[in-house]
Amino acid sequence: MSTTTPAYEQLTALHTRLHRLDHLGSIAGWDQAANMPPKGNEARAAALAELATLTHRLRTDPALRCTLEQAEQENLSEDQRANLREIRRDWRAANALPESLVERRQWATSRCEHAWRTQRLANDWEGFLENFREVVAVGREEAARLADELGCGRYEALMDRYEPGMTTAEVDRVFGDLRQWLPSLIEQVTDRQAQEPVLAAQGPFPVEAQRALCGSVMRLLDFDFEAGRLDVSTHPFCGGVPEDVRMTTRFSTEDFLGSLMGTVHETGHGRYEQNRPRDLIAQPVSQARSTALHESQSLSFEMQLGSHPGFVGLMAPLVQKHLGPQPAFEAGNLAKLLTRVKRGFIRVEADEVTYPAHILLRYGIERALVEGEIQAQDIPAAWDEQMRDLLQLDTRGNYRDGPLQDVHWPEGLFGYFPCYTLGAMYAAQWFAAMRREMPDLDARITRGELSPVFSWLRERIWSQGSRWTTDALCGRASGEALNPTHFRRHLESRYR
Amino acid sequence: MSTTTPAYEQLTALHTRLHRLDHLGSIAGWDQAANMPPKGNEARAAALAELATLTHRLRTDPALRCTLEQAEQENLSEDQRANLREIRRDWRAANALPESLVERRQWATSRCEHAWRTQRLANDWEGFLENFREVVAVGREEAARLADELGCGRYEALMDRYEPGMTTAEVDRVFGDLRQWLPSLIEQVTDRQAQEPVLAAQGPFPVEAQRALCGSVMRLLDFDFEAGRLDVSTHPFCGGVPEDVRMTTRFSTEDFLGSLMGTVHETGHGRYEQNRPRDLIAQPVSQARSTALHESQSLSFEMQLGSHPGFVGLMAPLVQKHLGPQPAFEAGNLAKLLTRVKRGFIRVEADEVTYPAHILLRYGIERALVEGEIQAQDIPAAWDEQMRDLLQLDTRGNYRDGPLQDVHWPEGLFGYFPCYTLGAMYAAQWFAAMRREMPDLDARITRGELSPVFSWLRERIWSQGSRWTTDALCGRASGEALNPTHFRRHLESRYR
Repeated sequence: MSTTTPAYEQLTALHTRLHRLDHLGSIAGWDQAANMPPKGNEARAAALAELATLTHRLRTDPALRCTLEQAEQENLSEDQRANLREIRRDWRAANALPESLVERRQWATSRCEHAWRTQRLANDWEGFLENFREVVAVGREEAARLADELGCGRYEALMDRYEPGMTTAEVDRVFGDLRQWLPSLIEQVTDRQAQEPVLAAQGPFPVEAQRALCGSVMRLLDFDFEAGRLDVSTHPFCGGVPEDVRMTTRFSTEDFLGSLMGTVHETGHGRYEQNRPRDLIAQPVSQARSTALHESQSLSFEMQLGSHPGFVGLMAPLVQKHLGPQPAFEAGNLAKLLTRVKRGFIRVEADEVTYPAHILLRYGIERALVEGEIQAQDIPAAWDEQMRDLLQLDTRGNYRDGPLQDVHWPEGLFGYFPCYTLGAMYAAQWFAAMRREMPDLDARITRGELSPVFSWLRERIWSQGSRWTTDALCGRASGEALNPTHFRRHLESRYR
Repeated sequence: MSTTTPAYEQLTALHTRLHRLDHLGSIAGWDQAANMPPKGNEARAAALAELATLTHRLRTDPALRCTLEQAEQENLSEDQRANLREIRRDWRAANALPESLVERRQWATSRCEHAWRTQRLANDWEGFLENFREVVAVGREEAARLADELGCGRYEALMDRYEPGMTTAEVDRVFGDLRQWLPSLIEQVTDRQAQEPVLAAQGPFPVEAQRALCGSVMRLLDFDFEAGRLDVSTHPFCGGVPEDVRMTTRFSTEDFLGSLMGTVHETGHGRYEQNRPRDLIAQPVSQARSTALHESQSLSFEMQLGSHPGFVGLMAPLVQKHLGPQPAFEAGNLAKLLTRVKRGFIRVEADEVTYPAHILLRYGIERALVEGEIQAQDIPAAWDEQMRDLLQLDTRGNYRDGPLQDVHWPEGLFGYFPCYTLGAMYAAQWFAAMRREMPDLDARITRGELSPVFSWLRERIWSQGSRWTTDALCGRASGEALNPTHFRRHLESRYR
């Protein structure tokens, strides 16, 4: 440990300040989704934009270049050096793009996203294209500039925002593997399940009972309610700050599984945040490692654990307690309901077997789009071809349930989609590693001993923050690099 | 209207920025009281302190002195000139005290307030004194510096923070009048009411029913739910931002009148904020005029209108609808319950007749304390003497229900208390003016026509923001300066 590190300390002071200001933005953002009445929107947007401008200026202070260089000459501990690496990554991201491009992006995406809300409902692809072309143009310019800066491919440069260090070669490798076996697995599973009786749950399910059920399951999952809450929003998310996690869900009186499993999913995100390293909480090195790693936690909770027959056995009495007894709530039937596989148009409604098909499709299209190999107007044809190929569905003319279904493209979030399936693969890899280390893991889960799972995740993932690169973290946690075999084995053993 | 006002525009741009940043602080502050789980507190306090430091730096930028002087030479409209006057007032307040004193105050009050929470419960006056002496010392130094700056008396200088332009001579005039007739009025009213039967309401009253009742009454009072909400907090307040007002209340299943009338009170604050001038919403000239003026709105709602027999006649069916019928909810009995007068120890539980006695007492003590005429340890004796004199109550040894009952002194808010009773006086004056202009006002209220009341308040008070000094606003609204006779007539006609 060094005794005098003035430049490094200047940088940590800046990030403490940013952490505190971002706290206000996170809470105001959560409130906007969970509480805010409609007439507050304009003032809230202006307030959040003011904060974004302010923190962007702090991040792009020209003096920082020199401070960073000085800090790199200082005698730092290993943790400090990891933090400095992440501080530089943050600095590079903030400084990579000229302010004019940042503003152009802001303008293009907010216009496109706003119009998309109605265009989606109206199935208006042509109207969408008018705004979306500019979003694509901005995305390509960002990609070109970031690729120059990082010395990598264009799509890769955008992906780096969410998955630092991930390469298209690596995604191609693991997604290529997936594409080999996924369509036939879907075929086998749906054929088998067609023969298998399952009882549908009989609604309606009162909202207050569902809310209480979600609370019970969050407690089962060790969510710390002294450091977070569950509220309601149109689009569920996990926000707030690590010291005060704000999860949301949405309730339908016709379907309790959506709110329940959505809550289990967000609880995975929430516990990752609640258990980030505390001593450096304000520093970049304490941040969750990446988007795929975050998704690996929500999917560890929702899929690996949440749909595990042993865990379903723990949930079933809670479901019966809060929603009243009925034959469909018997554990075996509940497990069947949670693992029902059905080809469908909509990604967010997909089960864990067909979900990756939606990602393969989007990855191929958005990568070609960013690289300039296709144009925006080519998307529907590419979409239809892929949907036929992967899920045997005809999407011609159905833009609403096709390329207009997600908010990511209108918002210009190219490079994000692969993280969902990378997260599912990491989650399967964590549980495979746990089983190697604890051969009785499944029996313990079934007995209600969940602490081995939580301890493993806390030690290997949550408490590591961003100390290691994703590859190093993955190796340290599971003993090997990202290996899609575990995901395949997981799906085959649960579904085939 | 001038065509080139670059210095003025620099100032309005700064205040637009401050308005947006304050928005985040207001919402985070509301959330802290209404939602935040306990482990979020430290991070929230740090985030709010960071914001306070940031906005204080923006307000004390040394370049502003020159910009203000330049703006005063520019060719401004009347509204712009009023705004510039308020911008200067804001600037003076931010720059009047050295940063060391601001920090000392922060440290002293947060320490004192924090300890007070347990000391109050423990009746620990001596323990309180240890911290409170420093709060008094800081208050005196602030008062001395502000008095030099403003060229006025020391206590007056502190009062100016809440009631700009208010003098101790004026407070002495109107409070002197009050002291003449209040004790004998209390005597008469309590004697008369002792003979008068009244039915107590029979609980319990379920929280959800009370919440729905509060919502109905807020709708009756034209609260705009598209631009605000009602939530729950330990200490009810009206926060948020003018575009999105966040009111809170608290529910007890034993007492529905507390939450109901507390909500009516906060709705008065809320509608003032919701109806501030929109075109200049980010500017100081759009701010509510003063603390007493704000209180005049909450008391116009709670006391002038809320306990008006005609309005009680409108509320009674809503009470019966939400809480179920019972004899005590008959309009005449409800009006009696709302106007019951009883001498008591606690200010916040006092009725409108005895409330001013609590303020007379606090005004006398805190003024003498700030001016150095008494010391902190002299407070209990002075308190007891005044309580005997004004309310015939013995408070010896009972610090908890005596000088330890309010948060104002531990927080160093000297000069605030008079605003409560000044507000009650202004409220009575507004309704006296309304009755002069609309002789059938009471009949209209009884018929459920509340819009004349709201229109009058909107035109004369809400929409005026801070365009005028308080005196000028009062004169324009009611045709005369602050006149305590109206408050006396109001109490005498309702209670004697």
